[in-house]
Amino acid sequence: MAVYTDVTFEDLEGLLALYDIGTPLSFKGIAEGVENSNFHLQTDRGDFILTLYEKRVAVADLPFYLGLMDHLAARGIVCPQPVPTRDGRQSVTLNGKAAAIVTFLNGISLRRPHVVHCAAAAAELARLHKAGEGFALSRVNALGPHGWKPLSDAIGNRADEVEDGMRALIDNSLADLARDWPNDLPTGIVHADYFPDNVLFMHDAVGGVIDFYFACNDMYAYDLGIMLNSWCFEVDGSYNITKGKALLSAYRSVRPVSEAEAKALPVLMRGSALRFLLTRLYDWLNPDPNALVRPKDPREYSKKLRFHRQVRNADEYEFS
Amino acid sequence: MAVYTDVTFEDLEGLLALYDIGTPLSFKGIAEGVENSNFHLQTDRGDFILTLYEKRVAVADLPFYLGLMDHLAARGIVCPQPVPTRDGRQSVTLNGKAAAIVTFLNGISLRRPHVVHCAAAAAELARLHKAGEGFALSRVNALGPHGWKPLSDAIGNRADEVEDGMRALIDNSLADLARDWPNDLPTGIVHADYFPDNVLFMHDAVGGVIDFYFACNDMYAYDLGIMLNSWCFEVDGSYNITKGKALLSAYRSVRPVSEAEAKALPVLMRGSALRFLLTRLYDWLNPDPNALVRPKDPREYSKKLRFHRQVRNADEYEFS
Repeated sequence: MAVYTDVTFEDLEGLLALYDIGTPLSFKGIAEGVENSNFHLQTDRGDFILTLYEKRVAVADLPFYLGLMDHLAARGIVCPQPVPTRDGRQSVTLNGKAAAIVTFLNGISLRRPHVVHCAAAAAELARLHKAGEGFALSRVNALGPHGWKPLSDAIGNRADEVEDGMRALIDNSLADLARDWPNDLPTGIVHADYFPDNVLFMHDAVGGVIDFYFACNDMYAYDLGIMLNSWCFEVDGSYNITKGKALLSAYRSVRPVSEAEAKALPVLMRGSALRFLLTRLYDWLNPDPNALVRPKDPREYSKKLRFHRQVRNADEYEFS
Repeated sequence: MAVYTDVTFEDLEGLLALYDIGTPLSFKGIAEGVENSNFHLQTDRGDFILTLYEKRVAVADLPFYLGLMDHLAARGIVCPQPVPTRDGRQSVTLNGKAAAIVTFLNGISLRRPHVVHCAAAAAELARLHKAGEGFALSRVNALGPHGWKPLSDAIGNRADEVEDGMRALIDNSLADLARDWPNDLPTGIVHADYFPDNVLFMHDAVGGVIDFYFACNDMYAYDLGIMLNSWCFEVDGSYNITKGKALLSAYRSVRPVSEAEAKALPVLMRGSALRFLLTRLYDWLNPDPNALVRPKDPREYSKKLRFHRQVRNADEYEFS
């Protein structure tokens, strides 16, 4: 939720001279996006989003992100499409920041998705996984297991300031996951942040998928684990088996899940819970005084992680 | 720039059931508005703004603000128009906050208005002053001279933390203005925050005026003073006489300015500079940890105030 870098109308006019997208009708900063500056631009030709990439998004990764959106869109995934400049560039520099214009998507993200939405979004995730095949670029998951230890070290003992026993929970989880993390499951392009915020609905159908700025190459089933964690827990912290089953069943109807993938889901859900716990905890303990978003509560994910750690075997999720 | 109160899709659905404005296509928080939560809503019938009124806007004043927009719109001023609920209410309660839906205006605010924009916006301000006549409600200017002393007291000696000599500048200005403030000039409805942010342009013409949440009854010429301060100074702090003259001339072409009003402009500009200096200084020294906007630099207005205080007579502005 943020506009960190100011874009004046005069800046906008200079920028639009580079593009063939008409004349501006309105231009407003959007209270969305964790660390980028986003603007909703309406021209006489349509609606667009202008993004200025702030510190968290490496400029070197822009060809991956923007190229991926192009690749996916060409394969039927409704996602923001980079709009090229008149001379064919996907990104430019504006006020010292890398910037890109993408198409605006209609649709509204749900805070409390129902079973029908979990299923629709899961089928879309499977389509996204299949559509990512053949994409020429690749990107390592910086927030995969190798990234967890440095984050955990940076957090240190301050973890317990946020919740009693958080430090031990993290240490035990890191040790278990180092032992249990699968390394032989199918991999490819994953969204890696497929939360309800990033799926836009039109009525009960998926209208589009947004925010590809964590996308990378990793296990498809890990993406599924991230989705199960972020779509199937209720506000009171309980896991909703009905949603979990509907989600998996819908995903499988588009992309078959191997027995090995299904079996690994509990450990992948633990890993994904730890990943979001660590980044949220770090941001909670190190609030950026310039941030215009409130840090998210890490305890949502310590609760999920504790839940997964007390599950004795995969059957308890009733995945099958 | 902010979304302080979250509005989920589920909240929105419940809200829209009260209105006859179609089904939602998109809904995004806007990084605009000092202390309210604003959302851009697109439906199959058009574009709207949903505002949730946070602490700074007194709910008791909503009939004034919303009624004023209705009154002005009916008299040809392009401004947001409150959309009534099916049962005729202009505001409702949403998530514990007073809320209203108004029409969305096209147009873009300028950060660096040229002479032509100063003139167009000034003519619009004069039209707004005339259109406000006959509005049934009234509202005292809480940030007029009677509001300055309490703000100044709340700031105390910390003023000098921000700039050497700021305390003396404020004290001397308060004393001079208590002596010089006019009390016999024409009054009526004024915008009271007619900054470039609040005027939307389409090319070089005014497309609309927004943000009526400081509007009140006060001297028309004071509104003109606020406008001169916020439109006619350059980034380097210098007063642009060409803009000032064009602004006044355009205003006068719509609403004649009496000799007494013209003569009072320098003191009204000092008063308006002090008013924005005080509120900015207070916010600068008392940052709200929950605020999602950065406080504006009060020194912009101490510089303007110092400039006005060294002007020996009105002729130096070349108003005539």
